[in-house]
Amino acid sequence: MDSLWTDRIAAGALGMRSSAIRDLLKLTTQPTMISFAGGLPAPELFPAEELAAASAHALAEAPLATLQYGPTEGFGPLRELVANWVGRLGIRAPTDQVLITAGSQQGLDMLGRLLIDPGAPVAVEEPTYLGALQAWQTCQPHYLRLPIDEDGLDVDALEALLASGVRPRFLYIVSCFQNPTGVTLAPERRVRLVELAARYQLPIVEDDPYGELYYGGQRSTPLAAIDIAMHGEPRYVVYLGTLSKLLAPGLRVGWIVAPRTLVDRLVMLKQGLDLHTGSMAQAVAYYACRDGLLDRHIPRLRALYGERRDAMLAALASERALPVGTRWTRPDGGMFLWLTLPAEDDAEALLARALAEQVAFVPGRQFHPGGGGANTLRLNFSHSGPPQIAEGVRRIGAALRVHA
Amino acid sequence: MDSLWTDRIAAGALGMRSSAIRDLLKLTTQPTMISFAGGLPAPELFPAEELAAASAHALAEAPLATLQYGPTEGFGPLRELVANWVGRLGIRAPTDQVLITAGSQQGLDMLGRLLIDPGAPVAVEEPTYLGALQAWQTCQPHYLRLPIDEDGLDVDALEALLASGVRPRFLYIVSCFQNPTGVTLAPERRVRLVELAARYQLPIVEDDPYGELYYGGQRSTPLAAIDIAMHGEPRYVVYLGTLSKLLAPGLRVGWIVAPRTLVDRLVMLKQGLDLHTGSMAQAVAYYACRDGLLDRHIPRLRALYGERRDAMLAALASERALPVGTRWTRPDGGMFLWLTLPAEDDAEALLARALAEQVAFVPGRQFHPGGGGANTLRLNFSHSGPPQIAEGVRRIGAALRVHA
Repeated sequence: MDSLWTDRIAAGALGMRSSAIRDLLKLTTQPTMISFAGGLPAPELFPAEELAAASAHALAEAPLATLQYGPTEGFGPLRELVANWVGRLGIRAPTDQVLITAGSQQGLDMLGRLLIDPGAPVAVEEPTYLGALQAWQTCQPHYLRLPIDEDGLDVDALEALLASGVRPRFLYIVSCFQNPTGVTLAPERRVRLVELAARYQLPIVEDDPYGELYYGGQRSTPLAAIDIAMHGEPRYVVYLGTLSKLLAPGLRVGWIVAPRTLVDRLVMLKQGLDLHTGSMAQAVAYYACRDGLLDRHIPRLRALYGERRDAMLAALASERALPVGTRWTRPDGGMFLWLTLPAEDDAEALLARALAEQVAFVPGRQFHPGGGGANTLRLNFSHSGPPQIAEGVRRIGAALRVHA
Repeated sequence: MDSLWTDRIAAGALGMRSSAIRDLLKLTTQPTMISFAGGLPAPELFPAEELAAASAHALAEAPLATLQYGPTEGFGPLRELVANWVGRLGIRAPTDQVLITAGSQQGLDMLGRLLIDPGAPVAVEEPTYLGALQAWQTCQPHYLRLPIDEDGLDVDALEALLASGVRPRFLYIVSCFQNPTGVTLAPERRVRLVELAARYQLPIVEDDPYGELYYGGQRSTPLAAIDIAMHGEPRYVVYLGTLSKLLAPGLRVGWIVAPRTLVDRLVMLKQGLDLHTGSMAQAVAYYACRDGLLDRHIPRLRALYGERRDAMLAALASERALPVGTRWTRPDGGMFLWLTLPAEDDAEALLARALAEQVAFVPGRQFHPGGGGANTLRLNFSHSGPPQIAEGVRRIGAALRVHA
């Protein structure tokens, strides 16, 4: 009987694997657990009252736009609002090139389905965002893995690859405060990358969920803005953004700013996927943002997450159980830092001991499409307060001591 | 430059076509247009105040469940509520076999990606739901087209197909008040269909968005309930349901009740698609339904849509411009009826003239995966009031007269 359905699984879906992060999240809901595992916003900052007011507005003033079927492209006023929002960053694109998606995760899924055939080469940073690897599991790309350092993607390595004649379907990059490492592509590399895209006809998928969350310093210029400055329109870069880290992930509202040649195909594809993103979520997001909520709210996020990043850096600096040679990134923003243990250490084995100590993180191998990264791990600092962060790092130290 | 992206379109996505319905919907937003084209619920019945109250409750009482990332499977209390809701119909399945989707459209997309390889045989009614054909465009199935009559799917034709040795990946069926024809699978055919599924090991995807919307008569027993009654658990039938027609499509909340062997794979797939369905929409749906909104609201829908169905049947019966030999279905529920013109007539040509008369419908060819159905058309009766329905049918008559 069991084979009734399993005999019929499509080739692309046969190799699907579950996400360690999602499985971990299930383990880490106990109140005694300190979790650095998820990429969760701080719940105490959710603007619940403002969103309740926006929801009441939307249902009273625009019940049809909130409850009826809507256009696949997204709720018009929200698309315009997003066009203005990204326009402030230099991503000046017409509103009809802005599409609303169910979070940027859906944008990744759509781009994979549109652009990846089985075995097709796709260039990614290594390590890279686990959710992209999951989105593209059923498309079965061949990953071209590019190294990153403190200044983000190694653009020399990319140039060498392109110069060798390889033509990836696209390069996928998290350009600011990368997930999982927290590093940001340096300004001069940004310009060079867009120049390389033009020279070698390389499409770029820029995923930028964290760019607004900088703690000191300033907003990096998106690759999409550089592309538009150079070429007068979105040409080489598809840009993905989201409200998940800026307001609330539960809305599932993100966006794609796409070159014109992609817009119609993305819309046709999305029509088959879900008809359109939730009207209510879009209307609530629109009414909230129209009233300036993002401008009021993002500074709160920056202040709180900046403190938490500092707390984690301080805790790591003073934790004596970390083996000699352990190093970690010092992100200027975002939600994650990346810890590298000495080469002989194994973060998955450490996790088993850490869970016993009631602390969780994500082992780095998960983010490596080619395996590798066994001695690395990702730590989230946005979800826990400073005392919990200090205690959590102490527990990781304790788990390391058991090992020693 | 244009070829930068278009050269990289994946094989499955090359043949995508836009939906005539969606394109038409854009044309039919003018206030003077009477549209029988969309499958839109009556906006005047949207329970906006009740949903505003549910939204306020959700954000005040459960801000985390409403705003934070949630489980891919869906919001636990909503899954339980859905399990109870479908349990009343005899679909008695454990809560962990109920998954929340972004409308049933996403369920169709997920099942296609999971079960269809290019060229794989998939059995469908002809005509069938256009949204399913769109969802599976990139999967490129080979459709095995089965005739339907006033009692729904011709089960003899299916049996002949199966007896000939063909093994479809699954049969897709809209079992109640089918979209587009409005016909319902007769009770004795339901039992025979599930028996055939068991005899020939045929998986069935049962799409049931309209089953609660009966106007006289009673609720048909879902195939899924018969499957469970015969086999003690969901075995041959995957069941798709949605709140889109019962509360509001803008929520994008639907569900899948799946055989156990499919559950994990559906969850893994959905994780890559959008992580999870919108938390806010799920929480609002839960708080609204927990307070009994469905039991209060569905009778209102039945009363109003029943009147409108009657209005459309009456208008058609008295419209003298319909050519001799024109026939139409008399649905016992749902949102659509199906009109068949004499064989020499062409509904697409008629539509062009009808739009000039300010009335819209969907030509039947759209619902025929094999082409055909040129002389048929789908009329929606849920969205317009009786006077508009009478006037719209009169305008169709006028468009037919221009032709004659």
